[in-house]
Amino acid sequence: MSNASDMTRDRASNATQRSAATAIVRFQGDERSEITDRVAIEEPLEIRVDFVANGARSVRSLSITMRTPGNDEELAAGFLLTEGLVRSARDIETIRPCGPESGAHDGNNVVKVRIADHATISWPNVERHFYATSSCGVCGKASLEALEVPGLCPIARDGFRFSVDAIRMLPAQLRAQQSVFEETGGLHAAALFNSAGELLAIREDVGRHNAVDKLLGEQFLQGHTPLSSNLLFLSGRISFELAQKALAGGIPMVVAVGAPSSLAIELAKRFDITLIGFLRGDRFNVYSGEWRLTGKSA
Amino acid sequence: MSNASDMTRDRASNATQRSAATAIVRFQGDERSEITDRVAIEEPLEIRVDFVANGARSVRSLSITMRTPGNDEELAAGFLLTEGLVRSARDIETIRPCGPESGAHDGNNVVKVRIADHATISWPNVERHFYATSSCGVCGKASLEALEVPGLCPIARDGFRFSVDAIRMLPAQLRAQQSVFEETGGLHAAALFNSAGELLAIREDVGRHNAVDKLLGEQFLQGHTPLSSNLLFLSGRISFELAQKALAGGIPMVVAVGAPSSLAIELAKRFDITLIGFLRGDRFNVYSGEWRLTGKSA
Repeated sequence: MSNASDMTRDRASNATQRSAATAIVRFQGDERSEITDRVAIEEPLEIRVDFVANGARSVRSLSITMRTPGNDEELAAGFLLTEGLVRSARDIETIRPCGPESGAHDGNNVVKVRIADHATISWPNVERHFYATSSCGVCGKASLEALEVPGLCPIARDGFRFSVDAIRMLPAQLRAQQSVFEETGGLHAAALFNSAGELLAIREDVGRHNAVDKLLGEQFLQGHTPLSSNLLFLSGRISFELAQKALAGGIPMVVAVGAPSSLAIELAKRFDITLIGFLRGDRFNVYSGEWRLTGKSA
Repeated sequence: MSNASDMTRDRASNATQRSAATAIVRFQGDERSEITDRVAIEEPLEIRVDFVANGARSVRSLSITMRTPGNDEELAAGFLLTEGLVRSARDIETIRPCGPESGAHDGNNVVKVRIADHATISWPNVERHFYATSSCGVCGKASLEALEVPGLCPIARDGFRFSVDAIRMLPAQLRAQQSVFEETGGLHAAALFNSAGELLAIREDVGRHNAVDKLLGEQFLQGHTPLSSNLLFLSGRISFELAQKALAGGIPMVVAVGAPSSLAIELAKRFDITLIGFLRGDRFNVYSGEWRLTGKSA
């Protein structure tokens, strides 16, 4: 995973830092201001388990989760507990950052849990979690790099543009169509707009990644991808996963009511996606690709 | 997965129904009212792929996602697209509900994607998604049942109680401690309270499941689980996964600012968890286990 970011962060001095400063452009009313804001840090954590099976110890990669750094040992322990892998704290001998030495490897994004010899764990029940990767047992970046979908290319810089005024009209259009959310308050929405600001399609789901997959899947099956003339609007926050899905769909602009994560911003910058968050009333923040915005007042 | 729910839903007549009616108890000010409300439906969807490898067709289970039913074919197509498995709609021959006949099996919670003979797919790149389950290729419930963590028991009905007034004081206590959310708006929080309404611990993360795992992991490592005298408070919504994590931690009461899903409510009822959502101001909804609430006015 690239680290070509202008986000300021000193990992060495504070391993549990959970937010990073980033340069943004804020639009509010007629004002455009370049300011520094803080965003939540999102990074992958790989959890490996070192356990006894058939009389011999082996190490396997159990899970990769996108998390905010800090309390990684707790996260690993809690994951093992809530997945039914361990029953007692005594089942765990140690939980350590996994690296060549001193845990400094790869920003501490791998932890290894050593299961006690005596612990009886029902492995068939958890086989579903295992990544069938050949890199298991080796401290390295292989499986973390696998997080990135292969073959993704930057979005073209020419072509799609969208006006500041049209950005501000997105939430009202979404609300007019978002039936079940109004009814239950329990669904995320993803909506596709064209460059004229017209709503083309909307999907709702309890999982925000599902809402995006449904929206993109429909367009894909109709042969409309890459969606190089479309804007994706999200009712919630923007994670790395959602930004990467937009990229896989070839979408040049992603706008959300909520906050983007640090890794979503990094991905947007790397692949020339225009990323906008905190769209509320006449205010919004531009995290990447402001050059696609038209109708800016001086 | 059990369906022992009193939620009203007619799946046969409307395969894309996204919300269900459920009986709740609403507290507002001094009033307690038994009403019917609607909640977003959450159910598992298993995506299987039927593809050619080494000259022969085989079927494998690619993913199980918790989703709101409807547009399942789009969801499968979008997932394949955004994970880089297919590039063109022509790579997909068919997408069909997978069942003994007519797709009526298991509430249509399995879809099978038949990949075209010509499609070249980089399987090593996606091996990370595969569940290593022996049920692959067989239409059945085996892998869906695997969603349930084995060995979970109902929470004891005696013991833990919590007052209506103390419920209403939870958000203010969370806000006072939730530093990074205030700063970035990008983190979910999970907090643990004792029966006196005192905040014991709080964890924040970009992933709400991670916030809960960190919180429970810390308690687990200290030997405090099962947390049979504690309340879990969540800043967002309550999914099946989060309710199940609370159950794995032995927590009798879960309270959230947001909405619960249908499956979270079913789980709570089955395992005697008190489930409360939409806590805002002096109002909240009780979805399950009201008998743990004290201090109710007549």
